[in-house]
Amino acid sequence: MLFRQFFDAESSTYTYLIASGVGREALIIDPVKAQVPQYLQAIRELDLKLVRAIDTHTHADHVTGLGDLREATDCITAMGEFTRAECVNEAVREGDMLDVDGVKLEAIYTPGHTDESFSFVLDPLKPKAVFTGDVLLIRGTGRTDFQGGDAGKSWDSIVDKLFRLPDDTLVYPAHDYKGWTVSSIGEEKHHNPRLAHSTRAQYIELMNGLVLSNPKLMDIAIPANLACGKLSKAA
Amino acid sequence: MLFRQFFDAESSTYTYLIASGVGREALIIDPVKAQVPQYLQAIRELDLKLVRAIDTHTHADHVTGLGDLREATDCITAMGEFTRAECVNEAVREGDMLDVDGVKLEAIYTPGHTDESFSFVLDPLKPKAVFTGDVLLIRGTGRTDFQGGDAGKSWDSIVDKLFRLPDDTLVYPAHDYKGWTVSSIGEEKHHNPRLAHSTRAQYIELMNGLVLSNPKLMDIAIPANLACGKLSKAA
Repeated sequence: MLFRQFFDAESSTYTYLIASGVGREALIIDPVKAQVPQYLQAIRELDLKLVRAIDTHTHADHVTGLGDLREATDCITAMGEFTRAECVNEAVREGDMLDVDGVKLEAIYTPGHTDESFSFVLDPLKPKAVFTGDVLLIRGTGRTDFQGGDAGKSWDSIVDKLFRLPDDTLVYPAHDYKGWTVSSIGEEKHHNPRLAHSTRAQYIELMNGLVLSNPKLMDIAIPANLACGKLSKAA
Repeated sequence: MLFRQFFDAESSTYTYLIASGVGREALIIDPVKAQVPQYLQAIRELDLKLVRAIDTHTHADHVTGLGDLREATDCITAMGEFTRAECVNEAVREGDMLDVDGVKLEAIYTPGHTDESFSFVLDPLKPKAVFTGDVLLIRGTGRTDFQGGDAGKSWDSIVDKLFRLPDDTLVYPAHDYKGWTVSSIGEEKHHNPRLAHSTRAQYIELMNGLVLSNPKLMDIAIPANLACGKLSKAA
């Protein structure tokens, strides 16, 4: 399998380009608009055909590359069914199986960071990895204080859905701020400081007590992302 | 296999923590002093025993974590035999095989960026990956203008040694500045803009014509790295 993780230093976002091999159809998860030229270079040089660009959720901290990638490659843009981004071509539901030329992804509805967040399990019959967006981060979890975020739902998504995956399933989040690139379900079960030794009630109290400033790009990113990354002319 | 890539955003350095599995002996390649607490956290949480810390060469852009890791874990510190860092415990030679609890690395002498740079091939009998330090970067090569750097030797190391590895060998460099995390030998053969369509003479001319400012940490990093990352009291 061809697997490429990219990092956008401006927003600390991870993006994943996946195909069953060189020369095959490919998908991309959580692309960043400013990095689209890099992805297109990789796609060209690896002789891939991009057929799907997926956002795990409506990001508030960077502008999505979905629209630009669709324009450049004619790929399908996909998000979970509860997204408010009308520009998305494909609305994915809980349990849907995406198959891109042999790369299989199962969609799981994992609200909490937002009310429309999905995660995607690679090779669901024998899970290799899960792309968790912002609901489960490495030794952390995504904030739950805007866009329909809900600490209780975050706990339920992580503990009742993601933590049922095998311990050796690799965890690839949409962000990391400390230089970690990957984790595993087992590690997060045992070492995630917000989850490992908490009850659901304690987690909700912790998350609801966080005082966080808004992401600096939020007022630009959310409207732009509802339009697949097309910036309004006023922006 | 357990494989963790870490990123130091300050110096854009990649560091690799590798073991045959959770609970086993581990090695680390190109650790950054400021990130040592992160590596120690991962080592502790993954129940690893760090037995070797390796620098591919004397870095000029960040301070090595070798000394701090040795102090914290009693690991062996290793570098190529031509290093001037007297504090290093183990001097590795061309063709040496390191075996850390089942993880096998072959040392290859790859001068060019510096005159003491080594690369390390993972699973040399059926190469999976190569850790190239700064001699071969993703779509680039390390500068050749200080610390015994030599453009001709850089070409020879890359073309006559690294490019003889199978095309699907993954390339893990010590740095990337554009958000790419991995490449392959085949990709660099065909798409590295400094190498793919050049002769040796053209490459030497190109590299010798680069006008680069010194790394901002150079005057601190090189003396510190010759002391395994111990900063002088004056610094």
